[in-house]
Amino acid sequence: MKRLAILGSTGSIGRQTLDVVRRLPDAFDVVALCAGRNTALLQRQIDEFRPRYYHCKSDVSLNGAKRLDPREMAALPEVDLVVVATVGDVGMMPTLDALGAGKPVALANKEILVMAGGLITGAAREAGARILPVDSEPSAIWQCIEGDQREIARLIITASGGAFRGRSWDDLRAVTPKEALNHPTWEMGPKITIDSATLVNKAFEVIEARWLFDTPYERIDAVVHRQSIIHSMVEFADGSVKAQLGPPDMRYPIQYALTYPDGRANAALPAFDPIQAGSLTFEALDPDNYPCFQMALEVGKRGETWPATLAGADEAAVGMFLDGRIRFTDIPGVIEDTLAAHTPVKDPDLDDIMDAAGWAAEYAVGLRRALA
Amino acid sequence: MKRLAILGSTGSIGRQTLDVVRRLPDAFDVVALCAGRNTALLQRQIDEFRPRYYHCKSDVSLNGAKRLDPREMAALPEVDLVVVATVGDVGMMPTLDALGAGKPVALANKEILVMAGGLITGAAREAGARILPVDSEPSAIWQCIEGDQREIARLIITASGGAFRGRSWDDLRAVTPKEALNHPTWEMGPKITIDSATLVNKAFEVIEARWLFDTPYERIDAVVHRQSIIHSMVEFADGSVKAQLGPPDMRYPIQYALTYPDGRANAALPAFDPIQAGSLTFEALDPDNYPCFQMALEVGKRGETWPATLAGADEAAVGMFLDGRIRFTDIPGVIEDTLAAHTPVKDPDLDDIMDAAGWAAEYAVGLRRALA
Repeated sequence: MKRLAILGSTGSIGRQTLDVVRRLPDAFDVVALCAGRNTALLQRQIDEFRPRYYHCKSDVSLNGAKRLDPREMAALPEVDLVVVATVGDVGMMPTLDALGAGKPVALANKEILVMAGGLITGAAREAGARILPVDSEPSAIWQCIEGDQREIARLIITASGGAFRGRSWDDLRAVTPKEALNHPTWEMGPKITIDSATLVNKAFEVIEARWLFDTPYERIDAVVHRQSIIHSMVEFADGSVKAQLGPPDMRYPIQYALTYPDGRANAALPAFDPIQAGSLTFEALDPDNYPCFQMALEVGKRGETWPATLAGADEAAVGMFLDGRIRFTDIPGVIEDTLAAHTPVKDPDLDDIMDAAGWAAEYAVGLRRALA
Repeated sequence: MKRLAILGSTGSIGRQTLDVVRRLPDAFDVVALCAGRNTALLQRQIDEFRPRYYHCKSDVSLNGAKRLDPREMAALPEVDLVVVATVGDVGMMPTLDALGAGKPVALANKEILVMAGGLITGAAREAGARILPVDSEPSAIWQCIEGDQREIARLIITASGGAFRGRSWDDLRAVTPKEALNHPTWEMGPKITIDSATLVNKAFEVIEARWLFDTPYERIDAVVHRQSIIHSMVEFADGSVKAQLGPPDMRYPIQYALTYPDGRANAALPAFDPIQAGSLTFEALDPDNYPCFQMALEVGKRGETWPATLAGADEAAVGMFLDGRIRFTDIPGVIEDTLAAHTPVKDPDLDDIMDAAGWAAEYAVGLRRALA
């Protein structure tokens, strides 16, 4: 039995992780669950999965498990794999603690790789601990390169195009959060769904891939693939391309990370049927319709504290849009104005990075206040 | 430098193998070349690649190399990899000799696996020698499973549909060899191109995959994929599917087998461009339009000397069609009448298998004579 600590257990990825665990009852032992403020759901998860430890942001006391700090959870000797299913920067310290303790981390929280990819992958290397990507695109790349000894020529990350694909950016001034949350192929949490609509998420995945697969940016491309069946592709030096395919359901990549390297059959996860799919299409990503993509990617490439600033400003801007305080089309402006006010730190340490993200989130919110 | 013996060097796969060798001059040393009756081309190949040994079916003496029997070539101590690029049953003995000497065999000659897959893979296992598939479909499967520790749930072999896809079988009574040789996506030798038009080739690939990947027939499917970009797919037990993609050019799988496991960049072999491809489609294989496919597959599954009889009868029938002696639509009838006259041998040894194939080829030709 693999013994798990799951951070972010009541979020979208956390709930789907527990669904995989539920369906493979002899494979996992849930040792610890950590959530935010959804204590009702966390209590039900404790009742069902009987972890020894829990944590939540609220002070309420839950039954059946012992409260423990998330950073201690991540380094518990009795944990074999730490699932980091949080959003934003909250997963940073537990991830570093888990890697520092030599534990593999199944990582869904892509923002922390955007912010501090060099530090996190460096910590993993130093401790000899693996980062197992949980997101569908890096999982696809991982599955394609696993065990293949050829040199990587190019990573091709697929993009559904998000909720507003096929519409021009100028058309999107009046879209509501509800419309933006209606993703055409994936059911995901609200932050990542809005990031998918702007394609900031796709820029984050390029940055994430740069760190996870130690591949320079000039060898990473994004291509629009509306069906979300091919989750990404890898081109090798000899001109051969491998792709990983499956229905758009996060439980597949979650299960791959959880059961790696052997995999496990799961009756709830049938394979993609090519005949039913019929056709798989590819289109170039039109930068005019996705102004955030190129901007976010340029900022990611700058390094220093720029990507952390980007992540902080984006998180704030998405929150402001979901709260109805800014328009969808204001998101890039809020991010760009925040970036314009940022003083970067060269060779940043973790504090510099966390500070930059925190500063950016506050500054972005303040920008809106000034405008109001 | 990998030292090669190439059997069938003047055929389609042999010429393309030498093209790969030509473009990677520091990677290979051609030790021996073996051809049939095209001595003019063989002489030019000897002049260019300077092998120590050659063989041809004609008595003519060639310059620059020493004549050597193909079976001796296959077992030469100074050879690291034997490329078997022959057609029909002529590759059988050299393949077994190479494997018996513990040498890896890059195998394009699928008929010998159809005829004697159990004997050949058994010989490889016993000697600890590897069979490296050269055909695009098994190469794709190999690339997808290489280094992946998950259990195989299903092999999905793609089929272009051949020269007459989209046309009903009844429409094909009057088609000429020239029309049948006009494959929509692949440039290949005549035998395999006709086998592709009837889809006997696809049944052969299913049988070949059964042996190469030790996968039962009920876990191998064929699907029509007109673009010939996805060369095959593997479904794993956890519901994840991997595919290998590339332009329809045999030099890619040839190079993969020749340079395995490291691969090599080759400027002549650019990668598939998804945006240029635009769309990849899948359709069910309609058995009514491909009567040979189901028939050939059923015969393959019977085992004993049936697949050898099938291979012999098919080779004869294809030859008769190319010579204008029978119609395209007579091919399945010639094969079926031959099978109907066959007395199978249980637990056949190599002689039984070679005898069955030889008998079937003669019987098939005789059938036509009786009809004429």
